[in-house]
Amino acid sequence: MPELRRDPVVGRWVIISTERSRRPSDFPSRPVRPQGTRPCAFCPGQESRTPEEILAVRETGSLPNGPGWQIRVVPNKFPALRIEGEIEPAGEGIYDRMNGIGAHEVIIETPDHMAAMGALPEAHLAAVLEAWRQRMIDLQKDSRFEYVSVFKNHGEAAGASLEHPHSQLIATPIVPMMVEQELEGALRHFRIKKRCIWCDVIRQEMRAGTRRSGRLVLAEEGMVALCPYAPRFPFETWILPEVHRSSFEDAEGVDPPAMARLLREVLQRMDRLLGAPAWNLSLHSAPLKTPTLDHFHWHVELIPKLTQVAGFEWGTGFFINPTPPEEAAKYLRDGTPGAA
Amino acid sequence: MPELRRDPVVGRWVIISTERSRRPSDFPSRPVRPQGTRPCAFCPGQESRTPEEILAVRETGSLPNGPGWQIRVVPNKFPALRIEGEIEPAGEGIYDRMNGIGAHEVIIETPDHMAAMGALPEAHLAAVLEAWRQRMIDLQKDSRFEYVSVFKNHGEAAGASLEHPHSQLIATPIVPMMVEQELEGALRHFRIKKRCIWCDVIRQEMRAGTRRSGRLVLAEEGMVALCPYAPRFPFETWILPEVHRSSFEDAEGVDPPAMARLLREVLQRMDRLLGAPAWNLSLHSAPLKTPTLDHFHWHVELIPKLTQVAGFEWGTGFFINPTPPEEAAKYLRDGTPGAA
Repeated sequence: MPELRRDPVVGRWVIISTERSRRPSDFPSRPVRPQGTRPCAFCPGQESRTPEEILAVRETGSLPNGPGWQIRVVPNKFPALRIEGEIEPAGEGIYDRMNGIGAHEVIIETPDHMAAMGALPEAHLAAVLEAWRQRMIDLQKDSRFEYVSVFKNHGEAAGASLEHPHSQLIATPIVPMMVEQELEGALRHFRIKKRCIWCDVIRQEMRAGTRRSGRLVLAEEGMVALCPYAPRFPFETWILPEVHRSSFEDAEGVDPPAMARLLREVLQRMDRLLGAPAWNLSLHSAPLKTPTLDHFHWHVELIPKLTQVAGFEWGTGFFINPTPPEEAAKYLRDGTPGAA
Repeated sequence: MPELRRDPVVGRWVIISTERSRRPSDFPSRPVRPQGTRPCAFCPGQESRTPEEILAVRETGSLPNGPGWQIRVVPNKFPALRIEGEIEPAGEGIYDRMNGIGAHEVIIETPDHMAAMGALPEAHLAAVLEAWRQRMIDLQKDSRFEYVSVFKNHGEAAGASLEHPHSQLIATPIVPMMVEQELEGALRHFRIKKRCIWCDVIRQEMRAGTRRSGRLVLAEEGMVALCPYAPRFPFETWILPEVHRSSFEDAEGVDPPAMARLLREVLQRMDRLLGAPAWNLSLHSAPLKTPTLDHFHWHVELIPKLTQVAGFEWGTGFFINPTPPEEAAKYLRDGTPGAA
């Protein structure tokens, strides 16, 4: 019997469609395999093909915008928003707009064109996460910005236009709609219960643990990976700190090595289980101007690209998910397709 | 300069990214060309391969579930929701769920496996729209259902798994989130202004007309096609009745021949302009139990599948649209790629 489930934070209902229930091997896999057309603009020695670097992890003595780096952050050459100017809201009859001010940066994660995020050494991945943090801290100082979205598209099917491993960030003068919805839903919960809703989710999932009915994937060193109760997508997985932290960029917000270890493990298991799928990652952290909130809990949403989003989803905001999260979690706990 | 624009109904901001501005010919086109692997389960003579028909337009004297039909409505063989049973909401700690009761039907639009919706004769397309209406009216009588979503996926890239022309409907015991958001935004506007927000949109767009700054595509026989002010997708187009109507299925809600003519014309222009793209269509009508609302205006949203939705969109609900709607409307007004 299919089931309707409600996401406890934003109130979105999804259809868990057991009629079409899917095991990992049922999804057509187009494995992400880099073609390796090198050197690309993100490869070492090609630094002049990107805008000048904002931040880099480099060998002592190496010069900015030359080789010798391990991680490099540069402005996006084709930015969705522009960094220069003041914010000018305007009306147009019943409509509202503003000029497109914002930051759009690229975090080049490694000099190795062929490396995938899940294959980076732990310490290197921790340094990538630290670079995210540093950029968020820096952009927080710019009073024009309300929010920094950090995200990553892995594989062409997930919208990556360049295959050299990179993540991106976009700082906006507006808190995005989905974050607003999370903030509203979480505040509603907090007003009634005086508890953070994600803390409640973690408590309930940790209690169920690795039982068949549970959705916990992994919990290690203060970090938790779980399949959410009402996921939009098969094998959707969230990663959160076990204790309450609203901002990723806070001094105590994230333990990069612990986060790197867990993220790496989840990515490697997804690769094995689903045949190296394309995926999207997005970081949800508190708005820049309210970094410390009792009701918001930062988290990373990881979505393997396995199904098509179609007319029903676009028209209703309703998602049909063929894989119950309990099954996805079972597979991800074991990490091999034969598990559940 | 890019621009941030706010959808006046739901309040969603989008980025109109002129830095990456796109003309129709800039989108990689994978034209939708039926392979014609016939007979499929929706072809005449194969009626026994579908569940028994609920409604059909047939030649006088032809028998149900046999050939001789022009349009045929059947239950989906692999339904996302099940029709039998009572609705049973349940809790699970902090979570909410209910059993997956609903209707999932397929409207087989024509016996011709190779016909596309835009190529159907006007009278035939009008009869398809009439079939949508009849099914909505019938499902409205079922007190378990709050909403009927009618939608269509055209082409594999848009999520169509069968190529024989068909639309679908899903009746749910819940008003979908996106419709709720539209209802809330529209009610907020109505409370202040005492006017329907879509009526306001139509008035403003009709006044701008076909000027360069306008977003009107076509207005004929009481039906209007326009590109919305803050579209999520390039060439996204809405079709609405010019006068206020909240329910598509109402006796006076839609004039099927007029709607068919306009929809057909828009689909044909999109095909010529964008190289027969895949697309999604969804009908937004008032909830079944409140069919007459002063603040809601039914509309069809038509989205050609030209871009990838990626991590930024999934993480934030923010969309980056490379084609300003004024340009999309200019092209669609002329209907040929060389227009604007």
